[in-house]
Amino acid sequence: MITSTGNAQVKYLQQLQKKGKLRDEEGVFLIEGLRMFEETPAERIRKAYVSETFYQKQRKIVEEKQVSAEILSDSVFERVSATKTPQGILCIVTRREWTKEEILGAEHPFLMILDNLQDPGNLGTILRTAEGAGVTGILMSKDCVDIYNPKVIRSTMGSIYRMPFIYLENLEEFLPELKEYGITSYAAHLEGEHFYDEENYTDGCAFLIGNEGNGLRAEVTAKADRKIRIPMHGQVESLNAAMAAGILMYEVCRQRRK
Amino acid sequence: MITSTGNAQVKYLQQLQKKGKLRDEEGVFLIEGLRMFEETPAERIRKAYVSETFYQKQRKIVEEKQVSAEILSDSVFERVSATKTPQGILCIVTRREWTKEEILGAEHPFLMILDNLQDPGNLGTILRTAEGAGVTGILMSKDCVDIYNPKVIRSTMGSIYRMPFIYLENLEEFLPELKEYGITSYAAHLEGEHFYDEENYTDGCAFLIGNEGNGLRAEVTAKADRKIRIPMHGQVESLNAAMAAGILMYEVCRQRRK
Repeated sequence: MITSTGNAQVKYLQQLQKKGKLRDEEGVFLIEGLRMFEETPAERIRKAYVSETFYQKQRKIVEEKQVSAEILSDSVFERVSATKTPQGILCIVTRREWTKEEILGAEHPFLMILDNLQDPGNLGTILRTAEGAGVTGILMSKDCVDIYNPKVIRSTMGSIYRMPFIYLENLEEFLPELKEYGITSYAAHLEGEHFYDEENYTDGCAFLIGNEGNGLRAEVTAKADRKIRIPMHGQVESLNAAMAAGILMYEVCRQRRK
Repeated sequence: MITSTGNAQVKYLQQLQKKGKLRDEEGVFLIEGLRMFEETPAERIRKAYVSETFYQKQRKIVEEKQVSAEILSDSVFERVSATKTPQGILCIVTRREWTKEEILGAEHPFLMILDNLQDPGNLGTILRTAEGAGVTGILMSKDCVDIYNPKVIRSTMGSIYRMPFIYLENLEEFLPELKEYGITSYAAHLEGEHFYDEENYTDGCAFLIGNEGNGLRAEVTAKADRKIRIPMHGQVESLNAAMAAGILMYEVCRQRRK
């Protein structure tokens, strides 16, 4: 059991928590809590760290997964945890990368393309809903929030391990490539010509979702094949970005089921 | 200008921030930020408080609304604000109550009924989306999160002023009353018999949405006329509660538009 904060592994964990750049270099991210531990495929866990109390109570769950695990005293665990009330389990998880070709070449592609999305909760919720709706991949402009942000990971409820995603160096330049794969792109836009449910999404489709405050950039909207909008009653100017994405995704899901 | 934290109004504001019970007794809630100030009807603002810096820059916006306003020095404002980086405007807003009869008696009722919903962001997002989808009222079990929680209010983006809502003393006992108003109730449930898009929602309808972690209570589900579910691909067990609500609401909106 590690009982000193001077321990090299403890120092390394603290650095990983603090420095996004280090996590990038190491090709890892951190997860915390029992629920996320259970969702994580064993082969993706580089190392698990558990508090003494957690280990006493949940030893079986840790051992069943057959991953390399280290026990930390409760007070040391508190120092490496990013949460206020730590559950007592934290893992270093290896990242998995997808190629553009893998994502675009899916059968009946159904893509979500996110332009400068900033809220971690929104990105996580989009991943979770996307898996539920049958989305085949998520593409993000490189200025979107970091998908390995702990808040994103938590709100995906495990979809982070199952939903293919990629960051694009240049979203505008990429968009014309969709045509080569027979994918029609739809910009969710407040000034869309058609309601979202007036289009046919049974063939390859991709939806462009913009930033929470500013919506989709004009340069990006201009590159989309069609502009669609979600009708709104009352004085609502726009929906939350994740909500708008979810409504579109489930319309595709509905059409493809019929 | 108020420059001392010993000032009675400053002390009163600090008490209002801290004590939900005092806000209840006074029949008020607090809002912060320019966006919420703009969304708030002038007649609902009991008093506005602005920081010196805010007043220098945005004097016009405050004066145009013709509300009673008080200027606080920047340092005093920071003490009364609940946010880390205060925008410099905070208001005491009077609550508005709706009766059950007002909500149930709406034309073509389209209701959302929330059972023990706990996340402020979810409740706020449901209100915002509900207004957009044309919902006529929201009913909440009394153990739902406080709708006057600042996080709820912020995420409604102003819908708090426009969406009728009520807390119910006893949700289970209330449900049979829906029939008297010709309203069919649908429980969103993972074990629903039909997909949500296989029902007809053009007549009076009400949707029951459960707690984030535990879903709808069995006693509540049992009282619903129909159980419906949202289909899910992959390994997704459930959707975020606000997302599930939004998908249902926009299906009603879609059907009623046809």
